[in-house]
Amino acid sequence: MKPIKVGLLGIGTVGGGTAAVLKRNAAEITRRAGCSIELTEVATRTISRAEGVVDSNVKVSADLESVVNNPEVDIVVELIGGTSLAKDLMLKAIDNGKHVVTANKALIATYGNEIFARAREKNVMIAFEGAVAGGVPIIKAIREALSANRIEWAAGIINGTSNFILTEMREKGASFADVLKEAQRLGYAESDPTFDIEGNDAAHKLTILSALAFGIPFQYEKAYIEGISKLDAADIKYAEELGYRIKLLGITRRTEKGIELRVHPTLIPEKRLIANVNGVMNAVLVKGDAVGATMYYGPGAGSEPTASAVVADIVDVARLLTADPQHRVPLSAFQPDMLSNDPILPIEEVVSSYYLRMQVADQAGVMAEITGILAQNSISIEALLQKEAQGGLAEIVILSHLAVEKQVNAAIAQIEALSASRGKVVKLRMESLG
Amino acid sequence: MKPIKVGLLGIGTVGGGTAAVLKRNAAEITRRAGCSIELTEVATRTISRAEGVVDSNVKVSADLESVVNNPEVDIVVELIGGTSLAKDLMLKAIDNGKHVVTANKALIATYGNEIFARAREKNVMIAFEGAVAGGVPIIKAIREALSANRIEWAAGIINGTSNFILTEMREKGASFADVLKEAQRLGYAESDPTFDIEGNDAAHKLTILSALAFGIPFQYEKAYIEGISKLDAADIKYAEELGYRIKLLGITRRTEKGIELRVHPTLIPEKRLIANVNGVMNAVLVKGDAVGATMYYGPGAGSEPTASAVVADIVDVARLLTADPQHRVPLSAFQPDMLSNDPILPIEEVVSSYYLRMQVADQAGVMAEITGILAQNSISIEALLQKEAQGGLAEIVILSHLAVEKQVNAAIAQIEALSASRGKVVKLRMESLG
Repeated sequence: MKPIKVGLLGIGTVGGGTAAVLKRNAAEITRRAGCSIELTEVATRTISRAEGVVDSNVKVSADLESVVNNPEVDIVVELIGGTSLAKDLMLKAIDNGKHVVTANKALIATYGNEIFARAREKNVMIAFEGAVAGGVPIIKAIREALSANRIEWAAGIINGTSNFILTEMREKGASFADVLKEAQRLGYAESDPTFDIEGNDAAHKLTILSALAFGIPFQYEKAYIEGISKLDAADIKYAEELGYRIKLLGITRRTEKGIELRVHPTLIPEKRLIANVNGVMNAVLVKGDAVGATMYYGPGAGSEPTASAVVADIVDVARLLTADPQHRVPLSAFQPDMLSNDPILPIEEVVSSYYLRMQVADQAGVMAEITGILAQNSISIEALLQKEAQGGLAEIVILSHLAVEKQVNAAIAQIEALSASRGKVVKLRMESLG
Repeated sequence: MKPIKVGLLGIGTVGGGTAAVLKRNAAEITRRAGCSIELTEVATRTISRAEGVVDSNVKVSADLESVVNNPEVDIVVELIGGTSLAKDLMLKAIDNGKHVVTANKALIATYGNEIFARAREKNVMIAFEGAVAGGVPIIKAIREALSANRIEWAAGIINGTSNFILTEMREKGASFADVLKEAQRLGYAESDPTFDIEGNDAAHKLTILSALAFGIPFQYEKAYIEGISKLDAADIKYAEELGYRIKLLGITRRTEKGIELRVHPTLIPEKRLIANVNGVMNAVLVKGDAVGATMYYGPGAGSEPTASAVVADIVDVARLLTADPQHRVPLSAFQPDMLSNDPILPIEEVVSSYYLRMQVADQAGVMAEITGILAQNSISIEALLQKEAQGGLAEIVILSHLAVEKQVNAAIAQIEALSASRGKVVKLRMESLG
């Protein structure tokens, strides 16, 4: 099958990530898409940077128009940001019959109605998963996965910078100004952080979610926007005393009178999962009449997380250009002739951490015997808890570092054979999921 | 555009939900899909029940073969469960050139390789979003949204019954046997709960996730399966002392030696979001090399939550049968000529709960004045906190029940005008997200 050719506008943080992912995962992407996807042209103002990222067979120039006019390019990926030049280029690409992938939330929220109308006219696709919540596939969830539902509302933590600041203010009891400085030092906030901390960025994303959830035009200009810069640390503390966390939330809700579209600091009961989304992470909670509440969580920004969404969009477009409808997505996610024959590991070969609980006679030297057995079997100890048990016995709980299951089983057999040992050792596996 | 005709096999819990959602949300589904989707035929052993659920123009019979042989039916929805009759019917439907939607995890995990091969041969689609984690769109996430990634591992709480039991054991310190009885009484566990509590159901779902994540055949027979029936309440308690929660986790991971495929009780650090997924809820955490970790959370079972996935699959198939590729999913999720003109509400019209903080002179009667103003403006109080502030002032924090923002603003103006009032009232909005 002929390769799909991609032209890239801009190779900054997300553009660089997109080029890197397309290159590194080329084989895995072809296994999924059924065709190869080739980056053939990059236009950027920082040519030297681009040349460090892409292969030598990729054309690199400062000529943005060249990409949107190149008849060889199937998909234009717009990652230059902003709303004037980006809009011109996108409309030109559409007029040239090219499909467009973008992560530009400001552009879609502000000019989406016009851009989509033009795209329908020219019969091209516009994909924009990266525009909301970075690597979290919330656009696909709302547009496709929840299509059975009348959506009632959506509420999201959709600005990582603000969430990082609020998390630090709560955990350290620090003021907004102090935490902002720290966030800027760590690179989580820009030198001019206005768009993030005043809620505009979240409102762009919320505008997109609202249009997709309810089937209304993009209406960014009607969003109510209130940021976190005036938030007092005292209110975070009082909220916590009352059982709440404060988050910068974008909320859109369908009511009998109309659609709510609002971004502001919001108290949320601390028992809600979304109240426990901390640091730069994003999460969107969607309430549908059939499914109830579902939540989508992950990194909302950054080079490769956002590139993950951009490349998934490229694959989605490529699938519609190359596959017959019945095979748009392969049944098993990968092309049937490209399945792998990796073996399934027997449980004895699995590497995990372990929780071991045992009862032993409370006598001198037992702990040395047990820890000796673990050491002989290459099992190192992360934590150890000794409890008094009934009838002169001691109960010992050990958490191990990573170990091979068969060695853990061998150690358990040796421990159970000790004269001080009473009964069976309880073994549970432990995963950090980090 | 001609309607898509759906035939339903089985109208139990999920089948009934599917019929109900297709009927109730017909207009919203048409706005999204661009064509109407009609349930035309139901086959079931409980005809009287079906007749209470579907309209009189839907053919209801006990003849399962009639649905898979009916030339009028475009999509067969298999919801009878089990792996023998369901398999025969599905293969017959495929042989008849019908697309099939199913929520049958046991069938796909056990016979998926054979069924998919036949479907490719006959050029039909098989959709099975409802087979894993009910209403949580984890199949779409892994097959489509994460296609840029080399997936490293997936770990999920994918059996609601077990998670309910583990949550109750932890919160109440109760034994497995006692909580199981309670779960059976509440309808969260079946009278024969073996498949849920011994991990087989989770292993079916994990087998499907593993095949889709790594591009390997379904290999249920090689899964390591350990349930929760032997779990001791003492270990849940010790795990908690050490900072962990115990969950029945399905884990599949790609290692250099092969693929891990295992279901067992697992200690997870309590600070992980997934460790805080409680009750009957499901969640799947997926680690991709580009995006990092993303998580998908929601109801993993039940009538309409699972129907949400089944109907989304029907819409997905319908889109490929009716739309041209460039318009498979409308850009704004809904058909462009079917957007709604619901107004965006001004913030003054929004209904929310409120957090109000004010400083007042610490003198008799002030609280009565404040609560009187709130009552006049139809604002009722959920909680009230009074703190000593500096300089003989009292600081009062009030949480309100639902109120209209303009009435809250009016109340704030009146409170600020009180002679005892000092400075501005801090107003924050509060959402239960329940």
